[in-house]
Order: sequence, then C-alpha cells, then structure tokens
Amino acid sequence: TFWRRVLDRLHAAGMAVVFCTPTATPPIWLTYGHPERCFRNASGKVMLHGSRQHAAYDHPDVRAACLRIVEALAKTLGQHPALVAWQLDNEFKCHVAEDYSDAAVAGWHHWLGDHFGTIEALNDAWATDVWSERYQCFDQVPAPGPTPFMHHAGLATAYRRADRERIAEFAEAQAAVLRAYSAAPVTHNFGLGFAVDFERMCTGLDFVSFDDYPSAKRWRTVVLDNDLFRNAKPGRAHWLMETSVAHNGWFGEHETVHPPGFLRAEAVASFALGAQTICYWLWRQQRAGCELPHSAVMSAWFKPGIGHESVAQVEAARMELHTLLTTTRPAAAQIGLTWSDHARVMLQTEPIGASSGRHSTDYRAIIDAWHGRLVDAGFHRDVRFEGADIDDLKLLVTPAMPYVSDAFLAKVERWVRAGGTWLCGPLTGMRTAEHGVSTVAALGAVEALAGVEVVFGWPVTGSETTVTTGGQTAELSGWCHAMRPIGADTKVMGVLAAAESAHAGPLAVITERPVGDGLVVMLTAEPQGEAGERILTTLLNHYANLAGVAATSSPTIGTIVVPRVSDTGETTWIAVNLDGRGGIVRDGDSVIAVEPYGWRLF
Amino acid sequence: TFWRRVLDRLHAAGMAVVFCTPTATPPIWLTYGHPERCFRNASGKVMLHGSRQHAAYDHPDVRAACLRIVEALAKTLGQHPALVAWQLDNEFKCHVAEDYSDAAVAGWHHWLGDHFGTIEALNDAWATDVWSERYQCFDQVPAPGPTPFMHHAGLATAYRRADRERIAEFAEAQAAVLRAYSAAPVTHNFGLGFAVDFERMCTGLDFVSFDDYPSAKRWRTVVLDNDLFRNAKPGRAHWLMETSVAHNGWFGEHETVHPPGFLRAEAVASFALGAQTICYWLWRQQRAGCELPHSAVMSAWFKPGIGHESVAQVEAARMELHTLLTTTRPAAAQIGLTWSDHARVMLQTEPIGASSGRHSTDYRAIIDAWHGRLVDAGFHRDVRFEGADIDDLKLLVTPAMPYVSDAFLAKVERWVRAGGTWLCGPLTGMRTAEHGVSTVAALGAVEALAGVEVVFGWPVTGSETTVTTGGQTAELSGWCHAMRPIGADTKVMGVLAAAESAHAGPLAVITERPVGDGLVVMLTAEPQGEAGERILTTLLNHYANLAGVAATSSPTIGTIVVPRVSDTGETTWIAVNLDGRGGIVRDGDSVIAVEPYGWRLF
Amino acid sequence: TFWRRVLDRLHAAGMAVVFCTPTATPPIWLTYGHPERCFRNASGKVMLHGSRQHAAYDHPDVRAACLRIVEALAKTLGQHPALVAWQLDNEFKCHVAEDYSDAAVAGWHHWLGDHFGTIEALNDAWATDVWSERYQCFDQVPAPGPTPFMHHAGLATAYRRADRERIAEFAEAQAAVLRAYSAAPVTHNFGLGFAVDFERMCTGLDFVSFDDYPSAKRWRTVVLDNDLFRNAKPGRAHWLMETSVAHNGWFGEHETVHPPGFLRAEAVASFALGAQTICYWLWRQQRAGCELPHSAVMSAWFKPGIGHESVAQVEAARMELHTLLTTTRPAAAQIGLTWSDHARVMLQTEPIGASSGRHSTDYRAIIDAWHGRLVDAGFHRDVRFEGADIDDLKLLVTPAMPYVSDAFLAKVERWVRAGGTWLCGPLTGMRTAEHGVSTVAALGAVEALAGVEVVFGWPVTGSETTVTTGGQTAELSGWCHAMRPIGADTKVMGVLAAAESAHAGPLAVITERPVGDGLVVMLTAEPQGEAGERILTTLLNHYANLAGVAATSSPTIGTIVVPRVSDTGETTWIAVNLDGRGGIVRDGDSVIAVEPYGWRLF
Repeated sequence: TFWRRVLDRLHAAGMAVVFCTPTATPPIWLTYGHPERCFRNASGKVMLHGSRQHAAYDHPDVRAACLRIVEALAKTLGQHPALVAWQLDNEFKCHVAEDYSDAAVAGWHHWLGDHFGTIEALNDAWATDVWSERYQCFDQVPAPGPTPFMHHAGLATAYRRADRERIAEFAEAQAAVLRAYSAAPVTHNFGLGFAVDFERMCTGLDFVSFDDYPSAKRWRTVVLDNDLFRNAKPGRAHWLMETSVAHNGWFGEHETVHPPGFLRAEAVASFALGAQTICYWLWRQQRAGCELPHSAVMSAWFKPGIGHESVAQVEAARMELHTLLTTTRPAAAQIGLTWSDHARVMLQTEPIGASSGRHSTDYRAIIDAWHGRLVDAGFHRDVRFEGADIDDLKLLVTPAMPYVSDAFLAKVERWVRAGGTWLCGPLTGMRTAEHGVSTVAALGAVEALAGVEVVFGWPVTGSETTVTTGGQTAELSGWCHAMRPIGADTKVMGVLAAAESAHAGPLAVITERPVGDGLVVMLTAEPQGEAGERILTTLLNHYANLAGVAATSSPTIGTIVVPRVSDTGETTWIAVNLDGRGGIVRDGDSVIAVEPYGWRLF
Repeated sequence: TFWRRVLDRLHAAGMAVVFCTPTATPPIWLTYGHPERCFRNASGKVMLHGSRQHAAYDHPDVRAACLRIVEALAKTLGQHPALVAWQLDNEFKCHVAEDYSDAAVAGWHHWLGDHFGTIEALNDAWATDVWSERYQCFDQVPAPGPTPFMHHAGLATAYRRADRERIAEFAEAQAAVLRAYSAAPVTHNFGLGFAVDFERMCTGLDFVSFDDYPSAKRWRTVVLDNDLFRNAKPGRAHWLMETSVAHNGWFGEHETVHPPGFLRAEAVASFALGAQTICYWLWRQQRAGCELPHSAVMSAWFKPGIGHESVAQVEAARMELHTLLTTTRPAAAQIGLTWSDHARVMLQTEPIGASSGRHSTDYRAIIDAWHGRLVDAGFHRDVRFEGADIDDLKLLVTPAMPYVSDAFLAKVERWVRAGGTWLCGPLTGMRTAEHGVSTVAALGAVEALAGVEVVFGWPVTGSETTVTTGGQTAELSGWCHAMRPIGADTKVMGVLAAAESAHAGPLAVITERPVGDGLVVMLTAEPQGEAGERILTTLLNHYANLAGVAATSSPTIGTIVVPRVSDTGETTWIAVNLDGRGGIVRDGDSVIAVEPYGWRLF
Repeated sequence: TFWRRVLDRLHAAGMAVVFCTPTATPPIWLTYGHPERCFRNASGKVMLHGSRQHAAYDHPDVRAACLRIVEALAKTLGQHPALVAWQLDNEFKCHVAEDYSDAAVAGWHHWLGDHFGTIEALNDAWATDVWSERYQCFDQVPAPGPTPFMHHAGLATAYRRADRERIAEFAEAQAAVLRAYSAAPVTHNFGLGFAVDFERMCTGLDFVSFDDYPSAKRWRTVVLDNDLFRNAKPGRAHWLMETSVAHNGWFGEHETVHPPGFLRAEAVASFALGAQTICYWLWRQQRAGCELPHSAVMSAWFKPGIGHESVAQVEAARMELHTLLTTTRPAAAQIGLTWSDHARVMLQTEPIGASSGRHSTDYRAIIDAWHGRLVDAGFHRDVRFEGADIDDLKLLVTPAMPYVSDAFLAKVERWVRAGGTWLCGPLTGMRTAEHGVSTVAALGAVEALAGVEVVFGWPVTGSETTVTTGGQTAELSGWCHAMRPIGADTKVMGVLAAAESAHAGPLAVITERPVGDGLVVMLTAEPQGEAGERILTTLLNHYANLAGVAATSSPTIGTIVVPRVSDTGETTWIAVNLDGRGGIVRDGDSVIAVEPYGWRLF
C-alpha cells in the first residue's frame, strides 16, 4: 500500500510508471546468517549484503522469496492505472558473471543432465580422456574453479551457458508471476556488457529496453545498442531505459562530463534508430550510498544539475520530431551483422586476437569493429541475433562465430540460394558446439558450402603474413585459416603470402563462390592496420554493391543517417552528428551540412 | 629480569632507554591453533604468525595477554633509572589497515551502537532505503567485505573510523597500565601513512614521536612530518624515533642509498623544526629475518656500515647547534594548514582526483601538494589538527575536508571575525558526517558563512573548464563546485568558464567575503598544471600578505628556513638545504648561500 | 591390457615408446569429495579436478594411489619390447610451486625435524628472537602463508627447499616401483622454470630429458638447456623430450609461429650439443581440452599442420648428420658456469636486482646473462651443478650463489690450487645456509680464500657508483660489496668510486689472488649497461686466456660453434645459426659463412 500511494500520486501528476521488481537488492533478513544463499564468485568469495546482486538466485529460498515479493507487488499494483510496464530486476549480471555458490553448482549439475542426457555423452563431447578428466556422473563435474592450469574449454563454455540459461529461467519465472496479475508489458534493461544471453532472454519479454551510459567518445555504442535491440523483438519498439544526463560517477571513479549537445544527439539518434522512450537515471541525486557523484536532473540540494539544460534540449528536440517519429519507423536494413550469444561465450573461454588494433580482443570488440565499419561506411544496418529471420537482408556479415549450428547454416544456405550474399568472417565455423575442433574439416560444414578446404590454421599476428586482394596488401592478425579452393566455381579473391605456406602451394584467405542465386564469401583472417581497414571497407562496399544494397548518402565519419519509412512507404532521412565535429551528407546532388551534435531531415 | 639486566648494562654505559611494548609481535603460543585471535584482512585472509601485526587486538584473549605482558614489563622496569620513555607497540597499523576478524566485527557492532544509539538513527543517517539496505539491528550491519559492487560510503567510512577508535583505545589501555607503575612518559612512533587517527591517538600520549625513512628525493616528507607532529602536543617537543642511516631495504625491495650529506641535512632540518631527539634504526644489522638489506650503523659482521660516517656527521652538527637548540624553540607559524583525520578516512572511501598532477589522489597527496606550495613559497608553517587551537594564526588553509563539523565551523567563524583569513579549499564541506551529501546546500553551512550558493558540482578533469583570476587562466581538475555569490559583500575572484555553465549565468570558483575583521575565501576547484600552480601560489602569497603574515626570506626551492625564538623573544634563522643542490636565502639586503645539504644561521 | 594392445600395435609399426606415469592427472575418484587430497596454493586456494597437478602428493592416499597405478603399469608393460624408457609423471611443478595443503604442511614439519634435529637448532639458525618468532616445537612453524609483512627469509627458503626435496622423494618412490618390474631406463622431462631441485632429482634418474618450447627470439634457451642437462648425468646422453613444431598456444595465449628453418636449427643445435633424441608435442592436434591452439604435426582434421614441413626438414638434417652424431660426442668444455639449486631458491626469497638491464632479477635471469656472455663470446661451455666434478675445467664462473657450502669451497680451493681459475661473481657467499648473514665476514669463508675483507655492502643501483678496470668505467647495479685486499698477494683489479666510500679509503669490487697454481678472482658488484657488458666480456676473455682456455672460432652473435670429438680424439666443429640472420665463423685463416638457420661442419 506504500507503493500504491506513491503510484496514486504519480498518476495524479500525470506520470506513468515502469515498476521494477526489487530482486537485485534483497532485504537483509534474506541473507543475514545465510551465506549459502549468497552469490560466490570465481575466486570463491562469498558476496555480502551491502551492495547489489549478492543473492544466489539458484538457491530455493532466494528464488521463493523473490517470487513471493514479486507476487505481492503484482497483486497490489498490477492493475494500477499509472503502471505502463514491469521491469524485471535491474541489469541482470551487470556486476557479476557466473555464480559458484553451492546452489549454482547444483543448478549446473542439473543443467548438464538436461543438456547431455548421459555422462557418456558428456565424456564423448568433451573427449575427457585427455588429462584423465573422464567423469562417472554429473555431480563430479566441477565448476571451473581454481586449477593449476586452464580448465577444459568445453567445461568452461558450458558453465557460462548454463548460468545464462538459469538466469533467463529466473527472469521467466518472475514474468509468469507478473502476468498472472497484470496486463502491463514486461521488459528488462539490458546492457551490452552484461553476462546474459540476450537472445534467449528476449524471448521471455514483451518488449526490450537497454541502459547505455556512453561517454561522448564512445558514441558508436549508442548506435550499436539501438541497432541490436531494435531487432530483438520485431514489431515492438525498444526503449532506452537509463542514460546519464551529464556524467557518470560513483565513489571510485568519475567519468568525464558530456560536452554540451551530446545528450541531445544521443537522444535524437536513439529516437531515429527506433527507441520509443528515453529515461534518465537519475532524477534527484542520492543523498547517500555509493553513487553520489553521478549526474542527476536535480541535485540532492534540489537545484538543477549540470545536465538539466541538456534534458530540456532533448525534450525540445523530441517535440520537434514528434510527428515524424510517430508516423514513421526505421527502415528495414539490407545489411545484417550476426550477433551470437553462443559465440560471445566461446570467445570468453578463448579470447582470440582477431581484431585490428583499435579494439581489444573479445567478442564485443570484434562486433564493435565490424559494426563500426558499417557505420563509418554510411550503411544503414541491423544487428541480428543468430536465430533471427534474415529473409529481408541482401548482405549478411558473420564474423567470429566459432560454432555454426546446422540450423543456422541451413537458414543461411536457403537464403543464399535465394540471392543473399553471406560474408563468413574470421573464426566462424572453427569450433564444435561443445568448444572442440572438428576431426573432419577445420570449419566443419561451412567448408563444403563455401567450396573450400582449410589446409591449416595458425596464429598469424606478428609473423608478417599478408593478404593481397584487389591490388591492396595488408598484414594479417589473429587466427588465420589458409584455404584451398575445392569447388570448381570457387574463386580466390585474397591470396595469402606466408613463408610457411610456400610448400603448401598457393593458398587463400578470401574466396567467393556462387551458390544458387547468391554468393558465399569467405574471409579467414583479419587484415590489420590502416591497409587492413581499407581492404575490409572495400570488401564491404564491393559485396554490398554486388548484393544490390542501396547506395548510402555518404556521411562523413561521426555522422549517421537513418532512413525512416511511413506506412505509405515514403522515406525520410535523419542525419545526426554524434562526434561533435559536425558532418556532411549527400542527398542526390545536394550537400547537407550537419552541425556539431546537430541533426537534419531530408 | 632479563630486561632488567639489559637495562642495568645500558645504564652503566650511560645510555638511556625507550622501552617498547612488544604487542606487535606476540609469541607463538598466543596465536598457534587460534585463528580466531588473528587479524583478517579485507579479502578475508587470516594472518599467521611469522611476521608482525597479525594479532586481532579486539579479541579479548589477545587484549588480556597484551596487557598482562605490558603490566609485567611496567612492574619490572617502570622505575629503572635507564628508562626515559615508554613506546606503545610499534608503528600501529603500518602493515595493515582495518581488521575484519570476528572479534573486530563484534567491536564494530559495539561501536555502531555507541555511535548511533538506535538502528533507526543509522538507517536515517545512511538513507538505507536505497538498494534495500535497511538494517533491523546493529549485528546485521556487515563489515565492508566482498560485494559485487561498492559498499555504501557511509558504512565504508564508519568502518574505518571505528577501527581507528578501537586501536586508540587499545593504546590507551596500555598507557594506563604503564602509568600505574611508571612515571616515564608514554609515546608512540607514528608514520604518516599508517591507518590510525593521529589526532585521537595523540590525546593519550605524553609526547609524540614519528618514524620517517625518506629517500633523498622525498625530502619534503621530513618537513611535513615535523610540521605536523610539532603541533600535535603543544608544549611537548616531538622525537624522530626512527630513521635510516643510509638505505632502506628488506627482502623484496632495496631503496636507493642516501647521497652523502643527506642524513645530516635531514637531522638538522628536524632539529630546527622542533625535534628533540633523533634515533636510528638500526644499530647493528640483523643476522636473520627479512630486513637484512636495511642499512645499519654497524654491519652484522660488526664493521662500520656505509652510513656510519653520516651518523658521525649528524652528531657533529648536533654538537655545533647544541646551544641554539637548547635555548630557542621553533617560532609559532602564522600560516596553518588543516589536517583532518576524518577527511583522510573519507578520501579513502572516495578518492577524488583533486590534485595537480605531480601528486596522486588521496588525502596525503593533497596535503603534500598544499604543504609543498607553502614550503616552496618560503613560508614558515604549521600543520594543525582539525581540533587544534588556531587563535595565533593569521591564515588558515583547509583543503579537502569533506565534512566540516559545526564545532570546526564555529571555531573558524569566531577566529575570522577576530581577523583571521580562512582559505576554504576544494572539496571542503561537500559531505555530511556520515558521508552523504546535504539536501539543503552542496557545502552545507559553509555556504552561508562564505556568502555563496553552489549551483552544481561535477567532475571537471578533462572537460577543458578553466578558471580566470588576476589575469591568469588555468584548467581545472578534480571535482568542481560552481558558485554564485549571494552575500552583498561577496566578491567573485575567480571566474569559471565551462561550456555547461553558459545557461547558468556567470559562475565562480574563487570568492572572497569579509566577515567581521577577517576574510573567508572559497576555492572550489583545483587549477591544474603549471598555470594552476602559479595561480595557487599567487593566491597564497596574496592572502598571506593581506592577512599580515610576515614576509619570507625568499629561499630557493629545496632550501627551508626555520625561525627559532629564544625565551627573550630574539629570533635566529636556520636555513637548511634539503635537495642537495644548494640554495640561496635573503636576510634583509644580504644574500646567503647554503651549500648542498648544508645549513646556515642568521 | 588396453595399453598392452596399444604398445603391440606401435611395436608392430616399428615404433618405440617412452611411457609416462599418469600421476599429474589423477582420475576424478581420487579427489572428488576429498579436498584434503588436493594441492593448496600460497593464497590458500584449493585446486580442483579439471586440469593438471591438482593432487597433493604428500597426502598418503594420493601417494598410495599413485604408486598402485605405477605398479600396475610397470607389471603390465615393464617387459614390453616397444618400451624404451619410462618417464616419471610430466613436468613436475610446471604449473605450481610449493604446496600448502595440510598434508604438505605435515611434510614440512617432518622435514624441519629431519633438517634441524631440535627446535633449539632452528631457533638459533633463524635467530627467531627477532620479532618474537621463537618456536616451541616444529608443529608450530607455519607455512609461509598470509602475514601483514614478509616472512622470515630462513623460513621462506626452507619451505621451498623442503617442498623440492619431497617431490624428489615422490619421484624416487615411483622409480623404485618401476625398477622392480622393468629394466627400461627412467627419465623425467624437466623444464628450466619448474619449481624442482634439478640436481637432487637427477640423482634418481637413469637419464635426463627436458622440454623446451622456445619462440625464435629465445633461441639462447635451447643452448642453455642443452649445456645444463648434458652435464646432469655424465656419461648418459640427454633427450629433448618435447618441443613445438611451429607455434605454442592454449586458450588464453597464442605465441608467434616459428619462422621457417627455426625448428631445424633448434634441432641441429640440440643434436650437436649432445641431445640424443628429439620428440615433438604433439602428433595430432587435440580435438578438445585447453590446448587446441598448439601446433601439431597433423591437424585435428588430419591434414599436415603448418609445421609438418619443418619436421621433415629436421629428419633430413638428422640423416645427413647421422654418422657424425653417432661417432662423436660433444667435447668437454674448459669453462664452467655453476648452477646452484640452493641459490635459485634463495633468490626467490630475495630477488636482487643484480643483472644488467637486458634481463630481469631472478636466478634464471642472472644465469641467462652469464651464459649468454659465454655464448656470445664464442666459448664452448658447460653449465655444472653445484655438486658436480670440476676437475676438467680451467675456468669456473660462480655468480649469484649466496650460500657457499664448506664442501663446495673446499672443492674449489683444491681445484684452484691445482691450477684452476675461479671467478666468484656478485652475491656469492653473502648468506648462510639458512638465509642469514654471517656475523664474522660478509662473504663468510670466501673472503679468506680470496684474500679480501668486505667493508660494507649496499644496494648500488641508481647511486652513480662506478667501477674502473683496465681503463674502462661502468656504473654498478644490484648489491655491491666493497672490498679491501688483505692478502699480501691480493691485487685490486677494479676500483670502486662511490661517494660514500670516500672516508673508507680506496676500495675494490674486482680483486685477483693467486692461490697455489691457480687464481681466485672476486667480482662483488655487476657493471651495467653497454660499458658494463664490455667490462664483463673483457674479464671473461682475459681470465679464459690466462687460464689456458682454447681460443674460439669467433662466431658472430647468433651463431654457435660446437666441438665434437671422436673416440680417436679428432675434433669436428658444427656451426649453427640460431637467430635467423646468418653468421660467420673462423677456422684458422678461413672464414666460413653460415646461412640463416643453416649449419656448417669444419
């Protein structure tokens, strides 16, 4: 009834409410004297009350208490007129990754049983005879805790996957309780770095939202977030649930304050890219806790904060764009970039230096690099989950997806035969589902589709190995697979020059093969440096052109252009400058200047 | 009786003894098989026998055993003619900070009860409704152990304060036992980095001593140590209890050996600045343990060590200065710098990048920077505890004291009205006693006294925000509070130029307001770089001048000048070169050269 | 019988087998539910099943199970015709160092009893009255676990020594079981970085083997490995048991691939330096586990891997050299470098910055530096264990051996009197057996033999202290002992210039004294930088020349020359280029060019 009174007042003031289930911050009585109900990290540390996400969601007592609280809230508030949505918990796994508590390990053993069926199946999938790791029953399989050297990759990857599935189940259990008492849609506020399986978790939500606290120089993140989450629930617009009005901070770190205009540009770009709503965290600066240094609309002493004016500018911009935003939606992209949560987990187990220098080496960095190339080349693009429909795409880029499932490959092949162009990037296909390597072909079934055989693979960084393609040459980095064309119609597009490959005959790292009405393009190592970036951009432009992707409006780097279509099919373009240096775009023959952090319609 | 025989022999040889209670190194039987009696660090590691400071002083068995041993020593040696002082323990908390043992946590709960009275008071002071942290009783309040994200700042700060109070109580308990059997004065050998509350702990001592093991390039530390501890027990001279004769070292690290002359300069400066006695650690190199690489007067093989000659030089200098030192004392300073142990603890919880680049970001670094400016400008200065008397000062500088107590502010206001000039530096006033932020005014009651209102605050480093004052401009760093003058007599002395403040009207980061016969000067962000240092030095000179502080003898940087006054009020000046490059000072119209590591009287 | 069938098939195919005892990877039932049987590291982490070396070999259950398995294998396979050798375990202590499990600590207490006899002896040797560390019984002596500051060096060193002795005993216990059932010789695959006592462990083996996975730029490691292990079991050739065919890798790291030709050069150099056999790890890339990225002769998909061609080249080279290798053996060296496992342990306790900048500061780095100087100067050299026979040497270099035992010193003195030249390098002699310092002379009994007294010692790095010798001057680094000649026949060869030593009279860091027919040369600090390297090389050449060491064939750096002698005493020289840049050697008046990674006989 406390919350009912709060919602009454907010409703009376004309405000709508997204109500969040409080399971990230359980009350003290849940964990006091109960370390077994607490999260335990990979180093064996048991988390205490005093912050967030310290409960072990796999513990039956914790789960029961959480659902009891959710049910009480759902019963009390589920029909309240102020309520427009439920948010499950808050930023699942933003502070923590896999749980190693006894309850979590029990969940792991249960998952193993579900996943493998028999212990023989596990032993076979993992080839546990190496290092005498053979298990006699699921309960013997350890969590990947301390060992003198690395754990088996199959185990390490499976542990991450199992944890992600269990947190999704926990979310789904909460959603089921809410739906029993309330028709309000259920969402969750994701963040790109959190240790969850986005694709799996999205299936249980009614609409998707995300939190993004970009500093001005990380403006591409906002674009990536929108490009990914716009496509997470086709047909339902996504929200930007939390962003900072001016600067991020907590005791321990202060990030640089936004330059004036950045917040508006962030908001306009998000609206243009499909975000329906933008909310700020937080309204009034907290008077205690650990996040006092974070910017707020109003200070604790209740004067306008440093970002207050920016918030007003955002609202002004939103009003200006209101008609456009409500009568159009982002156009479907013709270029897709694959996002694989399975791949993301695998590259945590196996961080491969596959990226080009301006980024680090995890999955996120690789996606950032490919997404950034598409953004900088001016293409409108979607980031699509591995399981998403791709029929409407003309070009699909799939880098760094070590495990290619039969289902994915079949979907791609069908689509290629119907005219699609698949650019299968470095690392894709090199692992089995359980993080092994095929004993038949380096890239498994991908090789047959691409009409190639991989002769050998090796870490190429630092060995002065190059690729030459279209008259350009660049050094290669990361892991390289040297291919030999085996299909009669497979063309070598990029020739490998490696001292070691002399005796193996001419080998390729870029090939192209027509399949049905479409094309399969293999790229099996990453060109690096400026020369490498030029090659990759040329490649993307070339195949986008071949695939019939519409030409871009050639924005300068730092400015994005978003096509919005009305129900009647007319297209309006929004150009937004995000790097604060202003930019230029082309509309046919005319050149349009965009001011720093400004936007233009055309 | 073993020790009595030792003291007899020392006495017979004409040597005086400071006897140290051995509580830092309890015998094996105290902790063997008793992990519960051992110190546990913040990561949960229980410390073992084999080094020092591994006992949990809060454990009743430990405390009782310590006091029993102290009592036995006091009984046996308390009246011995060789005994000139007792030293409590050795360098309390030099290796460790807060204890997390069960005994310490029980002490914490006890402290919370004493400090807050009721759990409601704690919940209110900490605003524990944020993140559902509300406690039902004191026993539930955790020590700030492992959590997925940061602990509540109020809790983190309180834990540090409680630990510091309990170690002070332990010291006081030892002192009480000693005093029951002995009239010898009680001291303790502090070090600037140790995790204790100097001000609180000094109240229980008869005189103060400190240990300093400076390398030659950290010569300012010796000055700071003397400037602080000289003022810790007004009327009682302090001692430099331990310093190194040539080089510091232990298995694991060797520091660079002193250049010839440095030890003498360190000693002369310390004597000049009020130290009554200087002792060396150690006399003869240990033949085993972990500190064999440390310099000693005599080597283990009993030949003169590399620093032996320096020790002889120190004694020669002391003899030369004997009359001066025994007939004069350091003059009282007219400029004070506030040392707040509460602030020091708060800045551990909340490290703010407020310093100017040549220093790091904790409280010590900030004090070093301000103290260094006063030293380099040639001012004679005191460092005064927050609770110290300030009546004799003309200018008081108080940087980085987030919590300004009513008592402190009332004292300052009284003194300002009587003519003092208070320079209230960055961060001062921005937190409540329990590490929150005021809901009324950013700087609490300071704002009214200074005649300003803070509009907003933000982290300014990296945002190209500047201050302009007296024709000079510098970038700001750290946390910035943008002020607007509200008193009719408040003058803006330093104008803020920040893109974000455009809409908020002209704002200030330096203001000045006459209050009674004095002046309150606000400086709410730190100018950085060379330009910033110039501004700060100009500011100090300007207000020292305005406040009537005596002009300096303009020493070159690296040379200090100390005024010593006799009982009849005559002043003798000692100039000491501490950086080994020699220097120049002015005495009226004459210019006096000081040789590298030399000294001159005038 | 499974393994018997495997060996039958290998034998039928003409393949010989080295069978390895599987004790590094115990089956799950040994440790499941038995944390007390598991290794515990220095931070207190208990290791789990899932990788290697996680069992506590000191636990009686573990040891019994290991020996039971070894016995079963020995019984079944001990007489098999395919079996040519047994390998004990695999790379003992390659992933871990000292065990801190309860079983290991019990072993430690037992070792202390054996080593010291009485607790009084321990207390006396360690001078435990410092810091009240005195023990009442061996069980009280802690393992060197967490303490607020460092442990006693004597304890820390002893703990390492005890662990190394117990692992040697475990190896010997396995060997005894094998020998009861099999005549096949017993070996172990060492690695230079592993935490074992090589000398002690070699006594229990029939022949020695080592693993080396050098990257191309660490080619000197291969030379050092062969120079050390060739001398480990005089009269029995050693094996290179494991090396990589192209690149090292595991999930977590990929090393750079070998340049073409490197593997062959590594192999030819090893053969030339006495290796009888070279094996590769591994034959076929694993399909699962954590080492998939490691190069293999054949890929998991069973095509030739990137190093396959290199393997063929090695075999071709071996065939070409077959006659030479089987009719000659490496000539005995005239220059020896002392390898002391005791010193190695001591320098872990006490890392001293004694090396010259291009290396880090542990024992291995110091040996690398001295060995590298001998290699680069073109000398054929042996690395000899502390306990090895030295009668055949002309020059012995002994750097960084803090504890010089009476037995070693007596052996050296006998040999010097008979004509040998001993270069006693920095740090040698500065510690007692139990890691203390002598109360009689800084370098103990070494001083009398060398005819010097050390006045004092100090850390010299960064203090601009120099040595001048033979007209050359260089700064000194690391720990320096300043000597004064006391023998009438002691000559100062290198004069110390240190500001601090002014008052101590002229002091030396290089001296020379004839003893019998030989010479004792002291070098008590390390000249650093290029000038320092020039001095050290000049010194080595000078004393090698004086001692009558044969002149070298002056290879350019990166090329080594190995003399091989036939039974009839004829010498053939093999020059091998190892740095890939090619080189030049001299044979009398003729100049011989060696191609990059090539070799030449002469």
